Amino acid sequence: MTGNRVLTFQGPMKLEIKTIDYPKLEDPRGRKIEHGVIIKLVSTNICGSDQHIYHGRFEVPQGMVMGHENTGEVVEVGRDVERIEKGDLVSVPFNVSCGRCRNCKERHTDACENSYVNDLVNCGAYGFNLGGWQGGQADYMLVPYADWNLLKFPDRDQAMEKILDLTLLSDILPTGYHGCIEAGVRTGSTVYIAGAGPVGRCAAASARLLGASCIIVADRLRERLDLVKKCGYETVDTTSATPVPDQIEAILGEREVDAGVDCVGLEAHGYGEEDRDEHSEAVINVLFDIVRAGGAMGIPGIYTNLDPGAPKTDMAKKGELPLAFSKAWIKSPKLTGGQAPVMHYNRDLMMAILWDRMPYLREVANTEVISLEDAPAAYKTFSDGSPKKFVIDPHNMLKKAA
Amino acid sequence: MTGNRVLTFQGPMKLEIKTIDYPKLEDPRGRKIEHGVIIKLVSTNICGSDQHIYHGRFEVPQGMVMGHENTGEVVEVGRDVERIEKGDLVSVPFNVSCGRCRNCKERHTDACENSYVNDLVNCGAYGFNLGGWQGGQADYMLVPYADWNLLKFPDRDQAMEKILDLTLLSDILPTGYHGCIEAGVRTGSTVYIAGAGPVGRCAAASARLLGASCIIVADRLRERLDLVKKCGYETVDTTSATPVPDQIEAILGEREVDAGVDCVGLEAHGYGEEDRDEHSEAVINVLFDIVRAGGAMGIPGIYTNLDPGAPKTDMAKKGELPLAFSKAWIKSPKLTGGQAPVMHYNRDLMMAILWDRMPYLREVANTEVISLEDAPAAYKTFSDGSPKKFVIDPHNMLKKAA
Amino acid sequence: MTGNRVLTFQGPMKLEIKTIDYPKLEDPRGRKIEHGVIIKLVSTNICGSDQHIYHGRFEVPQGMVMGHENTGEVVEVGRDVERIEKGDLVSVPFNVSCGRCRNCKERHTDACENSYVNDLVNCGAYGFNLGGWQGGQADYMLVPYADWNLLKFPDRDQAMEKILDLTLLSDILPTGYHGCIEAGVRTGSTVYIAGAGPVGRCAAASARLLGASCIIVADRLRERLDLVKKCGYETVDTTSATPVPDQIEAILGEREVDAGVDCVGLEAHGYGEEDRDEHSEAVINVLFDIVRAGGAMGIPGIYTNLDPGAPKTDMAKKGELPLAFSKAWIKSPKLTGGQAPVMHYNRDLMMAILWDRMPYLREVANTEVISLEDAPAAYKTFSDGSPKKFVIDPHNMLKKAA
Amino acid sequence: MTGNRVLTFQGPMKLEIKTIDYPKLEDPRGRKIEHGVIIKLVSTNICGSDQHIYHGRFEVPQGMVMGHENTGEVVEVGRDVERIEKGDLVSVPFNVSCGRCRNCKERHTDACENSYVNDLVNCGAYGFNLGGWQGGQADYMLVPYADWNLLKFPDRDQAMEKILDLTLLSDILPTGYHGCIEAGVRTGSTVYIAGAGPVGRCAAASARLLGASCIIVADRLRERLDLVKKCGYETVDTTSATPVPDQIEAILGEREVDAGVDCVGLEAHGYGEEDRDEHSEAVINVLFDIVRAGGAMGIPGIYTNLDPGAPKTDMAKKGELPLAFSKAWIKSPKLTGGQAPVMHYNRDLMMAILWDRMPYLREVANTEVISLEDAPAAYKTFSDGSPKKFVIDPHNMLKKAA
Repeated sequence: MTGNRVLTFQGPMKLEIKTIDYPKLEDPRGRKIEHGVIIKLVSTNICGSDQHIYHGRFEVPQGMVMGHENTGEVVEVGRDVERIEKGDLVSVPFNVSCGRCRNCKERHTDACENSYVNDLVNCGAYGFNLGGWQGGQADYMLVPYADWNLLKFPDRDQAMEKILDLTLLSDILPTGYHGCIEAGVRTGSTVYIAGAGPVGRCAAASARLLGASCIIVADRLRERLDLVKKCGYETVDTTSATPVPDQIEAILGEREVDAGVDCVGLEAHGYGEEDRDEHSEAVINVLFDIVRAGGAMGIPGIYTNLDPGAPKTDMAKKGELPLAFSKAWIKSPKLTGGQAPVMHYNRDLMMAILWDRMPYLREVANTEVISLEDAPAAYKTFSDGSPKKFVIDPHNMLKKAA
Repeated sequence: MTGNRVLTFQGPMKLEIKTIDYPKLEDPRGRKIEHGVIIKLVSTNICGSDQHIYHGRFEVPQGMVMGHENTGEVVEVGRDVERIEKGDLVSVPFNVSCGRCRNCKERHTDACENSYVNDLVNCGAYGFNLGGWQGGQADYMLVPYADWNLLKFPDRDQAMEKILDLTLLSDILPTGYHGCIEAGVRTGSTVYIAGAGPVGRCAAASARLLGASCIIVADRLRERLDLVKKCGYETVDTTSATPVPDQIEAILGEREVDAGVDCVGLEAHGYGEEDRDEHSEAVINVLFDIVRAGGAMGIPGIYTNLDPGAPKTDMAKKGELPLAFSKAWIKSPKLTGGQAPVMHYNRDLMMAILWDRMPYLREVANTEVISLEDAPAAYKTFSDGSPKKFVIDPHNMLKKAA
Repeated sequence: MTGNRVLTFQGPMKLEIKTIDYPKLEDPRGRKIEHGVIIKLVSTNICGSDQHIYHGRFEVPQGMVMGHENTGEVVEVGRDVERIEKGDLVSVPFNVSCGRCRNCKERHTDACENSYVNDLVNCGAYGFNLGGWQGGQADYMLVPYADWNLLKFPDRDQAMEKILDLTLLSDILPTGYHGCIEAGVRTGSTVYIAGAGPVGRCAAASARLLGASCIIVADRLRERLDLVKKCGYETVDTTSATPVPDQIEAILGEREVDAGVDCVGLEAHGYGEEDRDEHSEAVINVLFDIVRAGGAMGIPGIYTNLDPGAPKTDMAKKGELPLAFSKAWIKSPKLTGGQAPVMHYNRDLMMAILWDRMPYLREVANTEVISLEDAPAAYKTFSDGSPKKFVIDPHNMLKKAA
Repeated sequence: MTGNRVLTFQGPMKLEIKTIDYPKLEDPRGRKIEHGVIIKLVSTNICGSDQHIYHGRFEVPQGMVMGHENTGEVVEVGRDVERIEKGDLVSVPFNVSCGRCRNCKERHTDACENSYVNDLVNCGAYGFNLGGWQGGQADYMLVPYADWNLLKFPDRDQAMEKILDLTLLSDILPTGYHGCIEAGVRTGSTVYIAGAGPVGRCAAASARLLGASCIIVADRLRERLDLVKKCGYETVDTTSATPVPDQIEAILGEREVDAGVDCVGLEAHGYGEEDRDEHSEAVINVLFDIVRAGGAMGIPGIYTNLDPGAPKTDMAKKGELPLAFSKAWIKSPKLTGGQAPVMHYNRDLMMAILWDRMPYLREVANTEVISLEDAPAAYKTFSDGSPKKFVIDPHNMLKKAA
């Protein structure tokens, strides 16, 4: 193989395409690995959490290859790989996990504790400064622990037909779904989803797949609200002077929902008049207010105390938020934060997609296929509030599918 | 009030409409009850399990009022009823349960152990010789423990618009759903449902609501298979010479499914050539064969050792079936039988219906509204293999809805 | 019957015994109830949450009868009570719940939404200004919805022999157990329990019953730590200059545990040097730090925004706490607050006690039986940090048992 | 390395010690594996299921090395092994599983579907003709997928002190525990365990660890019943003329239990007078009778249709048993069969052992340490009904520990 075109981080708001060496079967510390494969990227999406990096709110080293939402074709296979073969079309969960530590064995691939994955914290991810694994907004990438990590699509042609849905399996569809699961969404649930970005929109589709009844999506951007409304979901406008419980009551006849999902995270704005400022605690506090006693909250939205752009308050430095837990306690609140363990869900969701059980996914995901060269501009458009989900097509393989 | 028209059992294949006294707020043993209500029937369906009674396969006393799938309007309220009022439109779970015994408190309303409900076995049902509670194929009926048992529809007009879906909440929709839940059906599951009668068809719709991928419904009757096929489900013809695993493989590319649901029960016929005879064990043994290791089976289909029509073999007398458990053991089989605890599911399913999350239910349920006078003929039509679900409309209230 | 001696709240730090009328079968708003019973108190304990009232940190009306940890003998039975009889010995869950609303049907008796129980918030409790239900630190008390609420001991003599264990079933044992369950405690778990008061000590015994491995109890009071240490649990001294993770590491060889339980609540002090001040957020923030990724936290400790003694900060007024959620997010935190739904657990725990599966409970609970007259002094002693659990014996029935 | 002493199967009731080649890092089909390790056996137990082989009731090839309950020290490590090192002391789950197939990823290691493990059925085991993996009643053995399969003891000295408990982690303790879990055993459960062999005795200890209240163990052999009685469990004598429900009622005051566990399997004898004959269905049918509505049954006891010693009836040939399912259906029976997924439980149980939470395990397990040379005689003694659990000590490492 010759080179590898990759999209690199060069500083906040500054991404550049470079050509680097074709990846090797070795880990970020240069150790040879027998369990890895090299994949040729078929599709690699731009994620809302890439935006945190792009905005300089999540630090990564200069030159890092971006991209953790990867789908590809296997082109090289390590010696200790048994179930994945060259030519397989696969979805790559964004979490790098080993399948050998306690947490992986207990299905917590969001918190892999193998020091070969990340020797600093208990998780890894591609293109995310979590273990040094390079991203997949590129021509080729390395995937370690391939038998464990990869989800193989059963039939290549069938997969290529549905590739714009299947490309969501690497992150945002399982992430939105995980938020719903942790929020207890089941048949008949009423659900409030904070955020109409790609994850929020996938959470809405997930809630529908799970049989939820009333699905409300909240956002501050008109274009995104219009999109979800057109797709049949209810909407709450967080910039409105009407308090959220009143907006919910107008939709549902009640001021509370069964389940709340935070698909916004740390860059949240306030509600109503406070929309003009960032209020990282705003979404969670609204959930405390509107999720009923006995309900639950899923918080896949990212929070961190390692945010170079955070306000320089004492609380922010300690990674603390002013949360209305005291007020909410009487309602028996239940909440779960953190990354989605993608492997817990991706096969199930793949099956649902392959058997056409999510015909509504495509429209609400609102994907747009772009070339690798277009990626820097697409980051900007996304940052400006576009309701699109951008899917990079490095090898021009999606043209037919799109 | 004057009288009460009721459909009564007079012997196998013999039902008659009689007029009896308007019901009182007292239990079958004549004790006054403070916790009951009287409802005016809005809809009351004929169930596949009514057929077991009709065929003389489940003994009931002569004169018993038939009907355990009841929906109605509350017209009289006991003194210790707090949350149900006159005029409320309600769905009545077919299980009579008390909300006061250990099993009810643990949500096992299928096995209420209150001797006020049934002093012989641990469950009760209307129109079923389980505690002496009269059925609802009538103008009026008594419902005990009304605060506990009744599901109130939030809005009367909205409910009347969807009444042909909501009428399924008293039994067959929660029963089919329960079968799926016990079979582990979730997002992406492949499911085999034995029986395309009303419960099997509701199980198919439930599997779809639960996000299942490939949903296969098996039956021996062409008309029923045609109906489910038309509604978008896969089908297996149990009379075919092609073995079931081969039929499944042709659909799915694999010979096993994740989940199996038995919606047939004791009057099962054999498979292939053995279709000409009753083989009560046939469905369960097929499930042992085709449910994958790690999968599960839900068996809402009724089995009993109190079947006057059972063959006079030693095994049948002991309530035993020749089950292929030894063969299946290596696959870690998991199976759950018994009545559905309707209350566990009916509110959730009601919410899904009211928010239009089961637009496909009406077609596959294939309801036909009839008058109380037409009921005896409908029993016969149903017994002959009709793919219809008959809904009795004693007070001509469904005409508009239909 | 003549009168009823009761322990009443007269103001912060001021309790008085009065004699009032014998209770009637009517609810706090004077409506006659058919579903209630009157019980003669056999034992009625002083709870840590009574201390919040005593300290003026949870407002209640002057004259309110204290006491929500009640065990008694049924002496009068309402007309719609079927399963409880005069003479039965019963445990009364501290939560008043109806068994008729959605939350009760879903086993969330901590959040009963029946307006007959409490027309202001979704829960009720005796002696707690939650619905107006009078407490049981008295000779007699009313229990509504008796069939639903009461746990009957199967044999009176056997129960009286174990009454000092069984008296804990009304609140603190299920509360400690609930904390463990929500924290995911199971076989082999490592557990950190904040607080060595009665609930914390019951949580420790619950963790042991659940098969936990290393059980660490933290407190600021030496006498309490000595007690739990003597009973075989590990201890953390929160006043120590050694940080909690270091103390844990010294015990366990790791700096994190699987499960964290907050049995302290709003009157928490800080850690180390900050012990001299109240820091309501301190316990939860330590849990965020020391509970491993993939672990969970149970927070039965009480928090409220209705605390007349809270600091007059903006955050406190809004019921907000500075919680280290941003920092913890990467660890996939899971936390559950709120009251224990006692009915979910009390029967199971009763069975464990009756079959001698908690021989270690008595010592760590450290009960002391007192007369009703001694109760005001016992409140004071408890407030001063006593490691005792005081059990009031209004009718001198425990003398033999003790 | 020189040779490897191994205990081999030479035919029914005929075992011989041979010396064969030291194992290689290659799978049974001769393919080199990078993921395996060689362990030196510290302890390797004789299991009740070894008895099925010994009796000729489960076919294995002549010369096969016996033994699937293995604990050892790692002496050689494959190239793709990251988390296991030479010198580690490890427990080997009896199931061979890959950690790379769907079932392993879903924690169903009892049904590993990797064709590298077993290309015939979906599971593998050492010394069991399930994939060709040789047993560990030997000096040395191969363990594939070592990072996935092995449970490492955290401290070698501590482990050697408790080795007679820890040696049970490879099979019978997790197996008994799994039976309890599938039977729904939890705090306060009443439990009936069929079989006082080693698995049944471990199930009894597991039920205790899980907080069960009344634990009843049934057997036909007096010596085993005496052992469990001495250890504080209740007993049922299946040879008695008193029916089992009557025996239960005498213990419990009720004729049913919450949970039933079958630790007998296919070589079951009948009850009462029928004890003289094998009745493979006898245990399950008793469970149908005595497990309460809403309870559950765990069936780790082995059943198979591949039993050369089975009676030559049509039913037996089809792997069918006459099961009282029709009779039981009204009780909502729930049952789960199959191998225990040892990895699901072994770490948790190890932690409980290391922290002394099962002080009662040693006595009821009733282990006796023997040399490899003594093994053939011990198989015979066990077959004759001994209440001992034999632990082979090939390298004389347990002498000190015992």
